[in-house]
Amino acid sequence: MKRGKVPPLFDRIAIIGFGLIGSSLARAVRKEKLARRIVACDASAAARAVIKKLRLADRVVSGAAEAVAGADLVVLAVPQSANAAVAKAIARHLAPGAIVTDVGSVKEAALRDLTAHLGPAAILVPGHPIAGTENSGPASGFAELFAGRWCVLTPPPGTPASAVAKVRELWRRCGMRVETMDAAHHDRVLAITSHVPHLIAYTIVDTVAELEAHLKAEVIKFAASGFRDFTRVAASDPVMWRDIFLANKEAVLEMMARLYEDIALLQKAIRNGDGKTLHRVFTRSRRIRRSIVQAKQD
Amino acid sequence: MKRGKVPPLFDRIAIIGFGLIGSSLARAVRKEKLARRIVACDASAAARAVIKKLRLADRVVSGAAEAVAGADLVVLAVPQSANAAVAKAIARHLAPGAIVTDVGSVKEAALRDLTAHLGPAAILVPGHPIAGTENSGPASGFAELFAGRWCVLTPPPGTPASAVAKVRELWRRCGMRVETMDAAHHDRVLAITSHVPHLIAYTIVDTVAELEAHLKAEVIKFAASGFRDFTRVAASDPVMWRDIFLANKEAVLEMMARLYEDIALLQKAIRNGDGKTLHRVFTRSRRIRRSIVQAKQD
Repeated sequence: MKRGKVPPLFDRIAIIGFGLIGSSLARAVRKEKLARRIVACDASAAARAVIKKLRLADRVVSGAAEAVAGADLVVLAVPQSANAAVAKAIARHLAPGAIVTDVGSVKEAALRDLTAHLGPAAILVPGHPIAGTENSGPASGFAELFAGRWCVLTPPPGTPASAVAKVRELWRRCGMRVETMDAAHHDRVLAITSHVPHLIAYTIVDTVAELEAHLKAEVIKFAASGFRDFTRVAASDPVMWRDIFLANKEAVLEMMARLYEDIALLQKAIRNGDGKTLHRVFTRSRRIRRSIVQAKQD
Repeated sequence: MKRGKVPPLFDRIAIIGFGLIGSSLARAVRKEKLARRIVACDASAAARAVIKKLRLADRVVSGAAEAVAGADLVVLAVPQSANAAVAKAIARHLAPGAIVTDVGSVKEAALRDLTAHLGPAAILVPGHPIAGTENSGPASGFAELFAGRWCVLTPPPGTPASAVAKVRELWRRCGMRVETMDAAHHDRVLAITSHVPHLIAYTIVDTVAELEAHLKAEVIKFAASGFRDFTRVAASDPVMWRDIFLANKEAVLEMMARLYEDIALLQKAIRNGDGKTLHRVFTRSRRIRRSIVQAKQD
């Protein structure tokens, strides 16, 4: 207990994948003294060089199996599509009693990929810290990324309560508000609040990319507020988002179908010059917006 | 020339409609000494009380005809659907040589509505200062609203160059970068950069409004970044946006049709697990985003 009255939550944290989330977590763990040692793992030599240069971890390795040896918490912060391969690589190397968590945006897929390779005896507490910026890579992280945001944990039935409590406390001390819910429910909530908006944002920016050259040049020049908000969303990491859409296919397609019905209604109102319907829908949307502001998510 | 070496651009500016744009313009005109007198006109008694209380104008009236008497510049800053009625009301009261401009988001409709009632002899310089916030009303304005943003002027063929130059100088001194273009071209550019994004934002928020209660509550609670950006856009003034969609019907429906084709492509890629297509489109969108950042519109 050299560090004072509050002991670190973990002895050794292994963070696999040192992008925006992984490197921000490492910074927060250091800052809040949440572990005695941090082991960083990244497959990219360039990323490892940055981690060393910025001294973000106590040890930096290239292989996940090596990284997890002796760790009492393993955090998978790789793109969602890499979860299965990482789980396979670390399965035989986990310390007894080690807790495994991840940070992916789609929880049913995470649970499936981790369980398949780690087996039913592994202690799994999948998580989703809902935080991010449009930047990626180990240099883009910062300890305050998580402050005031939500983190959703989706432990499968039977997970020891003590393990859930420890992961909850990790994120809480990073400044997050933490909730636990069913993985499938999480995925539907995120489909409409995050995944579908990103899909539309990517699409609308792509529609601009295909405009006639003179129109496109002026679109970029005069980009008004609505478009700038869209393009901000569309600047996010392409690999991460590809993986999200592939992993959360069903919920995204369901929410898109609902959205289509509503768009069709507004489009018909425009075509028919039906100002009453437009005004009614826009007024209702403004109310929802106010609920969100009141929920202090802005 | 009591105010120094640079004479005011105008002797008397009449601003009809004192919402966010009208009241911000009045503040900027005062601050930059762009006119000797400002006459404010608003149909709402509540708005007029705010204008008087905040001393935003030299004179405050309720009728447009009264407001324009003796003004050498008349600015229509009412919702787009009110342009025709205001034009009709002021037609016989304009001073000889008075310049008439507006601030609406749809320029073909503005030109049509103004010309119809003011006649071919009127000096029209329709304009669109591309600036705004999610707030409305005379108290929400501020002089710096226009700083660094674009203003597009769409004078019809035959407009005296001196009149265009004066309106250009008005917005330039409010801090805007000013361009002149054809009204129809303006409307297509704005359809894809502003109107369609707003339509989608309103729709997606409306889709949330119709979710099952427990899902809706959590959507509001966990609103992640993409959704918050969407809802910010959807908080804009419902009357203004109703009018925009009714006035720019053709361009909006055309751009929606293009957008649908692109959404269908991505949706099919998700359904088929086609990660290559998703990654290709997302990477292209990121490039466009970077063009916009480089164009300094963020």
